[in-house]
Formats: sequence, structure tokens, C-alpha cells
Amino acid sequence: MKNIIVGQSGGPTAVINSSVAGVYKQAKELGVNKVYGMVYGIEGFLEENFILLDDYLSDKKNYELLKTTPSAFLGSCRYKLPKIEGNEDVYEKIFSILDKYEIDAFFYAGGNDSMDTIKMLSDYAKDHNKKQRFVGVPKTIDNDLPIIDHCPGYGSACKYIATSLKEIIRDNSSFPQSRLTVCIVEIMGRHAGWLTAAAALAKGKDCEGVDAIYLPEYDFDIDEFLARIEKLRETKSSIVIAVSEGLKTKDGKFVCESGVSERKKDAFGHVQLSGCASTLADIVAQKTGLKTRAIEFSTIQRSASHLCSLTDVNEAESLGAAAVEAAHNGKTGVMSIIDGKGNISTYDIHEIANVEKKVPTEWYDNKKKQMKKPFLDYARPLIQGELTPIYKDGLPVHLVRK
Amino acid sequence: MKNIIVGQSGGPTAVINSSVAGVYKQAKELGVNKVYGMVYGIEGFLEENFILLDDYLSDKKNYELLKTTPSAFLGSCRYKLPKIEGNEDVYEKIFSILDKYEIDAFFYAGGNDSMDTIKMLSDYAKDHNKKQRFVGVPKTIDNDLPIIDHCPGYGSACKYIATSLKEIIRDNSSFPQSRLTVCIVEIMGRHAGWLTAAAALAKGKDCEGVDAIYLPEYDFDIDEFLARIEKLRETKSSIVIAVSEGLKTKDGKFVCESGVSERKKDAFGHVQLSGCASTLADIVAQKTGLKTRAIEFSTIQRSASHLCSLTDVNEAESLGAAAVEAAHNGKTGVMSIIDGKGNISTYDIHEIANVEKKVPTEWYDNKKKQMKKPFLDYARPLIQGELTPIYKDGLPVHLVRK
Repeated sequence: MKNIIVGQSGGPTAVINSSVAGVYKQAKELGVNKVYGMVYGIEGFLEENFILLDDYLSDKKNYELLKTTPSAFLGSCRYKLPKIEGNEDVYEKIFSILDKYEIDAFFYAGGNDSMDTIKMLSDYAKDHNKKQRFVGVPKTIDNDLPIIDHCPGYGSACKYIATSLKEIIRDNSSFPQSRLTVCIVEIMGRHAGWLTAAAALAKGKDCEGVDAIYLPEYDFDIDEFLARIEKLRETKSSIVIAVSEGLKTKDGKFVCESGVSERKKDAFGHVQLSGCASTLADIVAQKTGLKTRAIEFSTIQRSASHLCSLTDVNEAESLGAAAVEAAHNGKTGVMSIIDGKGNISTYDIHEIANVEKKVPTEWYDNKKKQMKKPFLDYARPLIQGELTPIYKDGLPVHLVRK
Repeated sequence: MKNIIVGQSGGPTAVINSSVAGVYKQAKELGVNKVYGMVYGIEGFLEENFILLDDYLSDKKNYELLKTTPSAFLGSCRYKLPKIEGNEDVYEKIFSILDKYEIDAFFYAGGNDSMDTIKMLSDYAKDHNKKQRFVGVPKTIDNDLPIIDHCPGYGSACKYIATSLKEIIRDNSSFPQSRLTVCIVEIMGRHAGWLTAAAALAKGKDCEGVDAIYLPEYDFDIDEFLARIEKLRETKSSIVIAVSEGLKTKDGKFVCESGVSERKKDAFGHVQLSGCASTLADIVAQKTGLKTRAIEFSTIQRSASHLCSLTDVNEAESLGAAAVEAAHNGKTGVMSIIDGKGNISTYDIHEIANVEKKVPTEWYDNKKKQMKKPFLDYARPLIQGELTPIYKDGLPVHLVRK
């Protein structure tokens, strides 16, 4: 491979930059000449908005700094390629740009939607005898990609969620029972409850854990929710409940829909969700008379690189490297994957793009509203290890695109 | 001093436990026999809800663990003593408990409201020839205590706010200008803008910083706010604005009052504030058509001990120790204080209790909505140094009350 290009797409994570680092490192080891970065994903690609990663990462210090730099170093996008039929001009443009820069392989770090880009481009290349290879690098805090055991970005988000919940539970239990506060914590994950499930990791010898976990895979019943709180208040001096942003009632309505006045759709047509916790906190306050508090982890849960999981960082880097290795070996239309034992390989992108993996029903106790042991056994290894950022003048330092 | 007792009061901080550690350590160095901890502050004291700190802190490992344990290890309260006149029975009860346990000195870590407890008790003791001494230990993330240069708890909250804002700003700027999002971040501080001001610390070589800072000391004007955003959107691909939870319009109405359906008063009669950012985010979305996001740091900003400032931890410990030293030297009705150079002494509690210190007007540019250099020079030293918690199985370990 002469030159290659790498891009980032979709919501950023704490370790999406480690994947780029892995791509760069492996490419250099394989003798690739130029490693381009597309600024703002495929959207920037179409405008030839490129940087040369050598300008940043040939410096070893910068390489390490990139790994604790949050969000998408290259810039991201939420741009879905149009279907090939009738839009051949877009595809021809992409391939002419690849030819112009003598790029032999195209790597894209992203989630389900972003993997669609790899699928379309590799399909087009095959159908039109183009030589370029297209390989996906998995990335999503949502952990909802199929085939792969777990996604880079998920482990660090879990570590943030569990650590913050330990602190929130402590804080919420600092007052006597007469000042009982019901704290409802909203966690990301539209349709799959992986992140919300991570709330279960907070529980341990030094933490009583959350009192209930509500996943978006199950119909939400406000009466059950209120009855649970009434039961808990009999004995507890602190109640902390984790809810998914995507909770829906039986009739398919988002819980948050009643609570927020303005709602936007993103470029993929997703409704922008927020306000589930505050909606519930208001209802609980009205119905029970208890003091309530709503907390949303919001974008911090995906960008808190100061608290990233070393396991996650290393896997993200390895999966980036594996993607380059695969392209080097002639593979295209695949994504690098990892199994539960840490073994890395690649898999057909057609089985991955646009597919969402839900939390297995047997890992959740829908009566107790708690995660079962198999989930804990699955998730605990993903939060192991710390990678302390470089601090300067009291704050973590980040690598910046010029 | 034969025996002493220490309590925690008001909203917890990341370092309020370091103050208790300092009290314990100094007491032991001075040969104090028993160091009691009151569980749930003065409220627990009245029920003789005590623990012996020796049971925990004689173990050096536990002592260090306490310093990275968030929230109030002893439990806290929001209980204000009634005025002495007509309530002598309450005071007599307190002194009879002190006599019963042979307690010579009473230490209380808290903010303005909590220092009132020290004032009342020391006044009563003087007027009734009681020998016990009462000394305050400063604690408040709000940093609004007078006399003292800065309050333990504030530095760690600043470090959390600035670090998280660096991550949020990064995250928010990951998409191209076509997906411009206005992110409004709500920070604690009812009447004083100290914590919101800390947003200014995020700015540096690797971070453009927040685009505006709105302190509660100044009337909030929605038209000015919207005009600023319209101006910013002309050139920026990311807008992040820090607002205080306590913003009020010219007519004295809290900004959040229009946005949240249920509102509670706490035991001091404070209205529980939240929802300022989400109210503003809704208005901005409606008026500008831009995508908006509201983030509240909520209680995490006061409990994130995984990100505490070492400077803050050390000062909290020293101020706890200084309080014990003062009582040992016969002082009562005082609080330990620190000046801008780190010199520690004590000050008359009558000048401190119930007084709120605001951000100096000359430190804020109300036109640019930014903090000026003197604030940065003041706050930067407070976030210096890290005290990495002990991690086990991927999460920080906390010390637990049995």
C-alpha cells in the first residue's frame, strides 16, 4: 500500500483517537508512505479536507498524547452515503480523489451507521474493478455492533459511568433518611441498554450500587416505577436509579417526549433524546412528595478520556492496527473485530452495517431491574486499568489539529 | 483536650473528608484520647449518633483512602440550630452530651450556614461559662465564605469543571460547522459565581475555552444572550457557554423557573435550582433554529474525588489540623482560614457565619462575558496537582462507615 487514509465518524468516544493511532502505527510498520487523515469523515473527504498524520504522530510524545485526547481528533461527521444507484457521480468523485492522492486503502472508525460507508464503498469498488480496499474500525460507546464481542469506546464509557455513579451514590447518601433524595441518572443508548447496564458495575464492597436499572429494550411502566420507589423509601436513606435515555412506554412513546419542549432530528433521522431523567424526576416529586434530582451524563460519558480504561485504549489501538494489517493482506469490505478472549480478526461488513445488537434478555432481571452475573462477568474486564493523562498546570493536555 | 468530636455539614465536597483526616491526625499528635465523629452532623449529634474515628483511621491505609473518598464520610445534614433565646433546652442538651462523653472541643466542617452552628454554640458556651471550645473548618465548593482567600472543596470542583469542559468543548467541536451545536453547561453556585467562573480555566493552548460565562451576580438578559449566539454562529463551528444555576433576570426571577414543573425548598428555605441550562437550550433552539444541548454538572462537580486537586486535599487537611491546634491553644468561636500565599490562621466566626462572598466585579468582563486575568491568577494555583485514587478492579476504592 502506497498511501492510506483514515477517518472518524459518528459520536466520538474517549478512545476513537487510539484507533487512529493504531492505524498510523501499523501503516508505518508496513512501510506505508503517507497516512492521510480525513477531517470531518467522509463529508470532509469529499472536499479533500485532509491532513497528514505524519505531521503529528511521527513525534512519539504526540502519539501518546493522542491516546488520551478525547473526542475525534480528525473531526467527525454524521453523513450517510447515498445509495449507489442514481448517485454514481458521488462514488466516482470519491474514487477519483483516492486516485489523485494515490490512496490504496480507506479506514473508517465508527458505529453501525458509519460501517454503512465501508459497505457501500467496498461494494462499489468490487462492482467497478477498483483496486482500493475499505476496512472498518469498530467504535461506539453504545456497544451495539453485532459480531464483535464489545466495541472500543464502550469500556471507557463504562468506567466513567461506574466511577461517577459511585461518587453520586456516595453524595446522595450523605444525608439522613429524613432528607431522602431520589436521584435519577440518565445514561446514553437509544435502543440498546449496554451503557445503562454498566451502572451495575458501581456495586461493590464499598458501594451499595444503584437501586434499579431500566433498559430501553423493555417497556417502561410508570406505575411499576413509582411503586418501586415507594417500596424503597420504606428502608432506604438514598435512592439512585439508572435509566436509559431511550425508555419508551408500552405505546411506543419516549418517556422524555412529555418533558422537553423542543426536539430535533439528527442527520440520520434519529430523534435527539434528553430529558428522560428530568421528566421522571418531576413525576416522582409530584406523586411521592419526595425530593428528586435528575442527572444526565450527556456527552461527558463519551468524552471523559481523563478516566479512560487502559484495556479499552489498548484494544482500540490494536483494532486500528488489525484493520491496516487486513487491508495489507488484500482484505476489503470487512471490519476488525475482537472476541471475549481478546482475539482479533476481521468480519464481513455486510453482516455488521446497520445492525444493532441488544443486551441479551438472560443478562437482565426485569423483575428486580438489575443486571445478572453474566453481564458483570462480561463488562468488568473492559474497565480494567488506567491510563493517566499527561497533566500540565492542573489539567489534562490534549493533542490539537493545527 | 481529653476527647474531641468532629462533624460535617451542608453539601459535601471532594475533600471534606481530608479535613476530617486533618482533625484526626492533629488530635492524635496532641495526645487527644478519643476522636468522635458525629454521624449526620449536629442532627446526629443530638441523637448521640457517634462513631470512633480511631476505629477507622488508626490504620494508615484507611487514612489515605479517606482522602480520596468523596462526599461526607461521617454523613452530613442541613440543620440550623434554633436561636438561643427560648430554645435553651436544645443547647443544654448539647452541652450535657458533651459532658457525658467528656468532649472538650467540637469541630464542624461546613459553609456559611454551618458556621452559624459554631457561632451559636461558642456564644452559648461563653455566656454560660462552659469550658468546651467550638472551631469551624471551612468547606464549600461555592467558595463564598468571607475572610478566607479560598475554601477547601473549591479547587477540586474547579479542576473537575475545567477538565470536563475541555472534554465537552472537544466533543462539541468534533462536527463541521453545518452541524453547529450550542452547548449550554450549567454550573452550581446559587448567588456567587465562583464555580461558574472556573469555566475560564479550560482555555489554554490546546483548548479554545468557553465562548461566554454568565455569573449569577449580574442580571441575565435573554436578548443579549441570543444576540451573542447569533454573532458567534457566524464564525464558529462549536459554541459552549457556561451558565450559573442561579441566573436571574432583571425582575429577580430565576431563569430556570420557567422550565421546571416541580420545585422544592431545602431546609434552609433555599429554592432547589436546576434546569437553567435546559431552559436556555430550549429557548435558543426555538429562536435560532440551532441544535442545542444542555449539560448540568449537578452533584458530580462536588463529589468527583477521582479528579481532586492535590493542593486542595492538602489544604483541607491542613485547615482541619489548624482547627485542632487552635482549640488546643484555647481558641473558640473561630474558623481556620488560609490566605493567598497558603498561610494558615484562624478568624472570629462572627465575621464569617451567614456572610456570602461574591466574585469581585473587577475580575469579570461583563461585556465580553469572560473572566479577567486576576481571576485566572487566583484560581489556577488551586487546581494544581493530582491525587490519583487507589483503583481496584477498574474503579476507585472508597472508605466506608460500618
